[in-house]
Amino acid sequence: MSGVRVGIAGATGYGGQELLRLLARHPHADVTVAMASSTSDRVRSLPALTGVWSGTITPFAIDELTAAADLVFLALPESASAALVPNLVERGPRVLDLSGAFRLRDAAARARWYPQTPELALPVAYGLTERRRDALREARVVACPGCYPTSALLPLEPLAAAGLLEGDIVIDAKSGISGAGKTPSERTHFSERHGSVAAYGVFGHRHTAEIEQELGRPVTFVPHLVPLDRGILTTIYARVRAGTTAAAVAELFEQAYGGAPFVRLREGALPEIKHVAHTNFCDIGWKLDTDSGRLVLVSCLDNLVKGAAGQAVQNFNIACGFDERAGLV
Amino acid sequence: MSGVRVGIAGATGYGGQELLRLLARHPHADVTVAMASSTSDRVRSLPALTGVWSGTITPFAIDELTAAADLVFLALPESASAALVPNLVERGPRVLDLSGAFRLRDAAARARWYPQTPELALPVAYGLTERRRDALREARVVACPGCYPTSALLPLEPLAAAGLLEGDIVIDAKSGISGAGKTPSERTHFSERHGSVAAYGVFGHRHTAEIEQELGRPVTFVPHLVPLDRGILTTIYARVRAGTTAAAVAELFEQAYGGAPFVRLREGALPEIKHVAHTNFCDIGWKLDTDSGRLVLVSCLDNLVKGAAGQAVQNFNIACGFDERAGLV
Amino acid sequence: MSGVRVGIAGATGYGGQELLRLLARHPHADVTVAMASSTSDRVRSLPALTGVWSGTITPFAIDELTAAADLVFLALPESASAALVPNLVERGPRVLDLSGAFRLRDAAARARWYPQTPELALPVAYGLTERRRDALREARVVACPGCYPTSALLPLEPLAAAGLLEGDIVIDAKSGISGAGKTPSERTHFSERHGSVAAYGVFGHRHTAEIEQELGRPVTFVPHLVPLDRGILTTIYARVRAGTTAAAVAELFEQAYGGAPFVRLREGALPEIKHVAHTNFCDIGWKLDTDSGRLVLVSCLDNLVKGAAGQAVQNFNIACGFDERAGLV
Amino acid sequence: MSGVRVGIAGATGYGGQELLRLLARHPHADVTVAMASSTSDRVRSLPALTGVWSGTITPFAIDELTAAADLVFLALPESASAALVPNLVERGPRVLDLSGAFRLRDAAARARWYPQTPELALPVAYGLTERRRDALREARVVACPGCYPTSALLPLEPLAAAGLLEGDIVIDAKSGISGAGKTPSERTHFSERHGSVAAYGVFGHRHTAEIEQELGRPVTFVPHLVPLDRGILTTIYARVRAGTTAAAVAELFEQAYGGAPFVRLREGALPEIKHVAHTNFCDIGWKLDTDSGRLVLVSCLDNLVKGAAGQAVQNFNIACGFDERAGLV
Repeated sequence: MSGVRVGIAGATGYGGQELLRLLARHPHADVTVAMASSTSDRVRSLPALTGVWSGTITPFAIDELTAAADLVFLALPESASAALVPNLVERGPRVLDLSGAFRLRDAAARARWYPQTPELALPVAYGLTERRRDALREARVVACPGCYPTSALLPLEPLAAAGLLEGDIVIDAKSGISGAGKTPSERTHFSERHGSVAAYGVFGHRHTAEIEQELGRPVTFVPHLVPLDRGILTTIYARVRAGTTAAAVAELFEQAYGGAPFVRLREGALPEIKHVAHTNFCDIGWKLDTDSGRLVLVSCLDNLVKGAAGQAVQNFNIACGFDERAGLV
Repeated sequence: MSGVRVGIAGATGYGGQELLRLLARHPHADVTVAMASSTSDRVRSLPALTGVWSGTITPFAIDELTAAADLVFLALPESASAALVPNLVERGPRVLDLSGAFRLRDAAARARWYPQTPELALPVAYGLTERRRDALREARVVACPGCYPTSALLPLEPLAAAGLLEGDIVIDAKSGISGAGKTPSERTHFSERHGSVAAYGVFGHRHTAEIEQELGRPVTFVPHLVPLDRGILTTIYARVRAGTTAAAVAELFEQAYGGAPFVRLREGALPEIKHVAHTNFCDIGWKLDTDSGRLVLVSCLDNLVKGAAGQAVQNFNIACGFDERAGLV
Repeated sequence: MSGVRVGIAGATGYGGQELLRLLARHPHADVTVAMASSTSDRVRSLPALTGVWSGTITPFAIDELTAAADLVFLALPESASAALVPNLVERGPRVLDLSGAFRLRDAAARARWYPQTPELALPVAYGLTERRRDALREARVVACPGCYPTSALLPLEPLAAAGLLEGDIVIDAKSGISGAGKTPSERTHFSERHGSVAAYGVFGHRHTAEIEQELGRPVTFVPHLVPLDRGILTTIYARVRAGTTAAAVAELFEQAYGGAPFVRLREGALPEIKHVAHTNFCDIGWKLDTDSGRLVLVSCLDNLVKGAAGQAVQNFNIACGFDERAGLV
Repeated sequence: MSGVRVGIAGATGYGGQELLRLLARHPHADVTVAMASSTSDRVRSLPALTGVWSGTITPFAIDELTAAADLVFLALPESASAALVPNLVERGPRVLDLSGAFRLRDAAARARWYPQTPELALPVAYGLTERRRDALREARVVACPGCYPTSALLPLEPLAAAGLLEGDIVIDAKSGISGAGKTPSERTHFSERHGSVAAYGVFGHRHTAEIEQELGRPVTFVPHLVPLDRGILTTIYARVRAGTTAAAVAELFEQAYGGAPFVRLREGALPEIKHVAHTNFCDIGWKLDTDSGRLVLVSCLDNLVKGAAGQAVQNFNIACGFDERAGLV
């Protein structure tokens, strides 16, 4: 027991359970406290975590949380994070927030999509690990990216940074149902989703704002629910500057991610969810039609790992100076 | 429009929607009214039924129901059926109840499993179609069997009637999730059921009482949830009297169901849910170990059709003197 | 038995079985013969069709086929259809071909995608029912559309015909696995597809040629396999002419499909596969961002029914002068 | 690199890949060689293992295998193991065989179920870890149990050893499809299994012999395929000696598995596959009807981990004197 003292708030949701699973076996973390999302939550046993983590989930209590932890992971609803983070920042612990509350920097965008989020005195690092390593090293508050934005930005950012993208960008994402969280609803009822696919949030999903902020370009983003539990496959349609060769695209990705332990470049062997489920990998493949300049990118990740808890742990590793892979392989 | 005027109460649930779908194209039924389960239910459009049935679901209202229908199908919660049926019986229409409220004849059993069910002045026919045709022809009130009991009784009854069964009877049933109804719960949340199987109701499922009543013997019945939407596969373990041959078993089933349009005898080619889903068939297969007398029976049906709405329509056909297959093929 | 004498070649595949199921209960068709795909196929029993169709599947034999049938449905591999159709045309029966062999009119495109297809002496009608009714009435040979093209063309054609479309058209389709047919492969192995999604055929799927031919415009089409059995959901990204209002789009669709029994217009209530599975419906929804002119269309159908056997039966109905809905409701 | 030099033969199947994944991050194992199942297999890249294991799968070659490894894991078809093990034993490396080839001790049973298996000069340890720790410590050859037998024996053995079991024992197992291996077949075709359940192997599955050998009693065992990828839930029906209390059963299990890191006792909170998938846990729950003595046991495990690769690694840990949990948490 000589690791960083970490606490988890919101440990009973799907993302929170995944955090607890990862941190329980992390070589440099001691999970000193794992709390439910609210003060009134009855303490729940988590059958999947018996024998994995030996502690007890307790009701949320900020005093105990800050007393026991030097770094806090928040896997809470946005409104809870919005209310809590300023308080935490004042008390001292570093914060890794998995919610969307502090991802948007523009005040107008934030007012629209996360109206309960206040201004913070401290800067917030956007935790897209492979692209923001420098900012993460010193960050006191990290807003970990959404699952959809992670799957869209990792393939798109290197192309945008190189000035290769032209025209409309269409992002068609297919997500497993665990992304909708643990609260039952007609939308996530088994019999409604089995054997079905549904689009939602057309022109109105707040992850669009997050993607556009980071990419610096407008996009058309449509998420879909597909009948599986964990994983996202995102298909991106774009055009590259005339004359761009397949070799140039491949080299660009190699430069961006050649040394990244959790991004696997598949090029023409397009990735599939099966190969990334239950891992922290983001796999990226692509096909370029050189005549027309049309580029199709396909990325895959596990929404609860690389799209949530895994990326948060990866950010924790970087923020604390550990090997980026610690606890994740 | 010259068929029997039928009404449906509870038309928005999974069983009710299936009823509406079947009756909308029934050659001898006019669906004059289809109602929600309660007076306060907001009227819901049912996207799957657009273009199939052109009417409108209305809130529950007993006066309108009895005015518009000569025969009423009830796809309601047990408590609602328990309260409603006596009232309906007084007003005149024939009743086909899909709930469990009136299935148990023994007062003590009923008090335990369906405490809200009153005594009825009229006799109630148990609507296991292939085995109760005579009682169904004149019935004013039919209690349609549960999905599990249907899958267990169709294979077991001929053997019990012939006095062939000996020793313990184990009934292990695997059901799709639509059997749990349309109300979301953690139990039926997609992410809880996908990739999982769970046993439930061990020594405490009320369908046990129903099976034992009809079979006249004790059984051990354990239902399981399997990750599919529609269908039940039931595996039954029994022993037959010493000296019983495979040919004798086959002949017994042939006598019982040779002329039944909706029971398909598979013998050694064991049935699978895929072959009965979205149909009114119950498929039955079996293997006999003649040395030991051990018999394994496997039956399959679609819980919303043969296990609910389809069998109710089959009972309607018999009760009204129509071809048993009307509207079901 | 006074209907049209129809034969089916290829009755054991998934599309063929669906044909047999639909035609067996069609009020104006007598299925006089149902054959396997080749002369050497062992005759297979089809457990799902027991009690639905009482005949026997026989090995393929052209003489018997043309002797017994005045109209022939072909649910064969492309190469088999390519070889067979000229022969059939000479012998007299009308032909409804479900394969892609005769869908492409341009000789160069056909040589690339269906190299085994010969020129036909007769004109071939493209069987997109709702959009080609006139051509279908007199057709001797009908090439029924592919499942993906049906899902893309029904929403796109009215917009293209009205001259409203501008810029790139992206078609992102999500299909159940039955579309890949009945032959086992690693690609369609349960454990490879469960819990996974995969894109395929990027810039190289022959349905692209079919869509572009009928639409008269280039498109980017990427199909995906999603873990369900039956159904396609297609998301289409386009731009409409400046100034186009939502009301104009709605009116255009209403004019195109207001009287069509199997196209359901959902507008903003986006369609889902669950609502069309096991039916002949194609559901179409859309969202227009009037400021930018971006239009997202979502269509759904059952690939084995509206995308194959159902549309073929619908074409049969029109070709023979029957009610378009006969056998399909 | 100071661990035991281990080799894997059959590394491309589902069990083999899981082995490779577990051993690649094992703190005391160096995977020096991972081979395909045969000399002629083309070397395959395994997309899921990129970035997890950095080596290359090579064709099978016994000389290289024995030169590079002091301990060999075999994830091969039975016939290949049957032929290979005597050869390996002669050459020296310890052997952990995941196939069934050497599980049966009775010559007649072996001749029936594994006719290609020869007599071995060395004793073979049956690798049901929690129940055979002593035999495993010195074993040169370990026959790792089948997935079904593991799920049946862990709950049944303590009861049998205590002399509590009476009468017939029925074992109804529900398995995910990965248990059928990686070779495509109609049986494992996605569209045949999705939305379906099927019983198979009634009175003829070779795991019956394995269970009966270890338990020392006859059982009725029926496996079923359920539509999920990984996991087995086994429901066991038995009777216990008159007068056995629930407390006695609970204490018996506590004594048997109280200190076992990978058996979790759930008692009345019956286990579900979801909680054990992708782990090495076997969860066991039960319900006793004290009046009748009927006992229903439910056990769950991941067939590729605790039912195959994970248990093999657990056996490796014990055979080599490592912490039983090494590489498995």
